[in-house]
Amino acid sequence: MNKIPSSASKLSFERPLVTVDVVIFAIQNEQFTVLLTRRPAVSSDPFPGLWALPGGFLDVLQDHTLLDCAIRKLKDKTGVETSYLEQLGSWGGDKRDPRGWSVTQAYFALINVKQEIDQKQVRGSTETAWFAVDDALRKRLAFDHTQILSAAIDRVRSKVEYTSLPAFLMEEAFTLPQLQRVYEVVLGRPMDKSAFRRRMLDADFLEAVGLIDGSLGRSAMGYRIKNRVTAVTFPRTFRASE
Amino acid sequence: MNKIPSSASKLSFERPLVTVDVVIFAIQNEQFTVLLTRRPAVSSDPFPGLWALPGGFLDVLQDHTLLDCAIRKLKDKTGVETSYLEQLGSWGGDKRDPRGWSVTQAYFALINVKQEIDQKQVRGSTETAWFAVDDALRKRLAFDHTQILSAAIDRVRSKVEYTSLPAFLMEEAFTLPQLQRVYEVVLGRPMDKSAFRRRMLDADFLEAVGLIDGSLGRSAMGYRIKNRVTAVTFPRTFRASE
Repeated sequence: MNKIPSSASKLSFERPLVTVDVVIFAIQNEQFTVLLTRRPAVSSDPFPGLWALPGGFLDVLQDHTLLDCAIRKLKDKTGVETSYLEQLGSWGGDKRDPRGWSVTQAYFALINVKQEIDQKQVRGSTETAWFAVDDALRKRLAFDHTQILSAAIDRVRSKVEYTSLPAFLMEEAFTLPQLQRVYEVVLGRPMDKSAFRRRMLDADFLEAVGLIDGSLGRSAMGYRIKNRVTAVTFPRTFRASE
Repeated sequence: MNKIPSSASKLSFERPLVTVDVVIFAIQNEQFTVLLTRRPAVSSDPFPGLWALPGGFLDVLQDHTLLDCAIRKLKDKTGVETSYLEQLGSWGGDKRDPRGWSVTQAYFALINVKQEIDQKQVRGSTETAWFAVDDALRKRLAFDHTQILSAAIDRVRSKVEYTSLPAFLMEEAFTLPQLQRVYEVVLGRPMDKSAFRRRMLDADFLEAVGLIDGSLGRSAMGYRIKNRVTAVTFPRTFRASE
């Protein structure tokens, strides 16, 4: 068993199933929510009828990279073509899928829900729905998706403490009180208004675009993200919660 | 092309090659080093004769999980069975391996080099050697291994700032000045002695084991890691470099 096979015989090894799953987060009705999709109720498929993270098999003809595959899955489920997308980790083993050895590469995406196109236009006929993250964690999800979802929530919450990540959940332009509300919804606790305001502006990732309608019908300065390619990591003294 | 195939036809899709690579770090001669292995000089194999990260194909019969596979690769190359091992990320695409669509799951390991068994006893006949990380980065490595190595170095250096990670590079028992020296070697800069001492002890991950021989032949308190399962994340006020 321990003999190292030659390269040629290794290529003829049985290969595992390879999938990509995307944990898609958005803020809806002042709740931090995640998109789930229901598995087909076909008993020949694993976990029939259970809710699961959107995802599926890598397509070696269509996808040039893992990231391409994640972008494709995101677009298939939401219509969204650009958003914040980050690799979360890999889960692989011989027990996680009854069809055989399987490895999934999980990503998480932050979208603003206004980007979402009408669900009826979304390709495929599978049922999808948004759930508050705590409700989603209490469901019985397919595969090891509860574990993956839990890791994604932990990652986002820990990054919220020191990056501009929550801004990707917002429709532009937005006001600073609206941005603060999103930080609070993701973290699940209130933050000090004047410290928040100073830190966001000092971190220099926002661009003023002029007065817009803010909360309670009052005008306030509107902002958009200067650079949508990546989130800004705040210097330690600027961290949101300090 | 965009029609969603049924589950059965998806299972007959071409599957990518799946590998696991391990970036193995150790301190040697006061240098932060990484283990590389030379690709066989067989022209039918990709990147013949180039240095590469240790790793190879997942074996669906032998490995029950991705982590099992990483542990097996680490043991094959070093003889080490336990060490700090952390998932780094996945790199996958149709261009990274001339043999076809390929995805690798990269891990990094921190070992103390005294754990290493004689290289002649290590299975396989491939040449392996330790390189200072900066020298390794300047080499032409096989596949996208320079990118993976670079990501691993960044991860370790950023974690060194706020975790007990470097302790896993040390043979036990060790003194606090020896531990400080390892932090300094990984980070590439000196640290304040009394602040370092206080922070390490306050972080409560070390256990005193009695006097041992320290630097310059003087006795000093020896320590070992209380819990080898995982690294301790320091509270912000205890961070090593503050």
